[in-house]
Amino acid sequence: MAEAFHCGARVTDLFVTVPARSRHQDLVTTIAAAGIPVHVVSGEVMDELAQTVTPQGLLAVCGFVDVPLAEVGQPGLVALLANVRDPGNAGTLLRSADAAGAGAVVFADASVDPYNGKCVRASAGSLFHLPVVAGARLEDAVGALRQIGLRIVAADGRAGHSLDDPEVQARLTGPTAWMFGNEAWGLPPELLALADESVAVPIYGRAESLNLAAAAAVCLYASARAQRVRP
Amino acid sequence: MAEAFHCGARVTDLFVTVPARSRHQDLVTTIAAAGIPVHVVSGEVMDELAQTVTPQGLLAVCGFVDVPLAEVGQPGLVALLANVRDPGNAGTLLRSADAAGAGAVVFADASVDPYNGKCVRASAGSLFHLPVVAGARLEDAVGALRQIGLRIVAADGRAGHSLDDPEVQARLTGPTAWMFGNEAWGLPPELLALADESVAVPIYGRAESLNLAAAAAVCLYASARAQRVRP
Repeated sequence: MAEAFHCGARVTDLFVTVPARSRHQDLVTTIAAAGIPVHVVSGEVMDELAQTVTPQGLLAVCGFVDVPLAEVGQPGLVALLANVRDPGNAGTLLRSADAAGAGAVVFADASVDPYNGKCVRASAGSLFHLPVVAGARLEDAVGALRQIGLRIVAADGRAGHSLDDPEVQARLTGPTAWMFGNEAWGLPPELLALADESVAVPIYGRAESLNLAAAAAVCLYASARAQRVRP
Repeated sequence: MAEAFHCGARVTDLFVTVPARSRHQDLVTTIAAAGIPVHVVSGEVMDELAQTVTPQGLLAVCGFVDVPLAEVGQPGLVALLANVRDPGNAGTLLRSADAAGAGAVVFADASVDPYNGKCVRASAGSLFHLPVVAGARLEDAVGALRQIGLRIVAADGRAGHSLDDPEVQARLTGPTAWMFGNEAWGLPPELLALADESVAVPIYGRAESLNLAAAAAVCLYASARAQRVRP
């Protein structure tokens, strides 16, 4: 909540319960001072509004924050979600992309809506930290990102190249968009074909695969390290 | 399910619905041939037994698979859960530890029960792939792991040393147990004091922290790479 306000999201209304108003007095005062209407509501109304099991007693109505593809600037690292459907995975991925210093996250094709409540909560504020593109066509996104100089690398458990291969690591020093596929079926051949390279997070044990958000964190941090750390 | 059977877990009974019996005919035949009682049940009974929203129609009753601390062997990489409470996080962490080639996972202090249904499902079979220690005291676990030659490294977002620091990477080439704390409050000072070193996954963007399972995947893969890849 404070994230949204401090990060410049257009907060249009604040709903608050009496106990939450006491707990977050400074924030509520700041928001009211900014001319934003503050509505005190009962716990029952908050339960309905928040659509979550244990609401925090504070709920801000914000304007949408997503940007068009053309306005992502010149990022060195991008996460490109191709049909990521689970909101928890998508939100966690957005949070990891933010932590790894990504300059944008693109929700493409049939990916979940970044404004899905579970996705927003799992993002832990990151939805407001970096440019997010919603509802893009994957092919358009790949074209636009390539145009501004990014290599498109598909994360694919079946790829021949391993993320730990020193040559792969060397290629990750340049501007990179990581493409992540659906949690159940990954990236089908026609989407893999859009990428410049496919790379697998190596499986050293007996697991069949990694959880999507875990694999994405490993890939994004491999890029962050390759782009920053001189060997 | 097939994981449990093929990985040597003691399956004592199999419950199956009629449609699932047709879908998984080979598996059911193999299990019946092994002398394990197979019980055909209705969809309603399966719903009750499986305690999940969309049961797969097949449910095996297994013996516990966890082992005592003294029986983890000589692992080169261990994940040590200190008060990890969320079963989804714990199961995902177990899956990532398996993928990264860890030799054991220890659930210590007030960590969730590894047999929690959500944890088992999030582990995607990994519960049956590597030695799991349940209900250990953290101090005992640290002592036992140090005794067999592992360095104890605490994952702590506030630590002074970064995971991407080349000196930290060099130290990760040796046998290592990663200690992961609670998803909300991390590792308090008295638990950090048990470790040989504290290391932070660096935050390059504006996120306050990483999701626990995502951070754990990054740490465990940093160890896997350091132990295998010659620079």
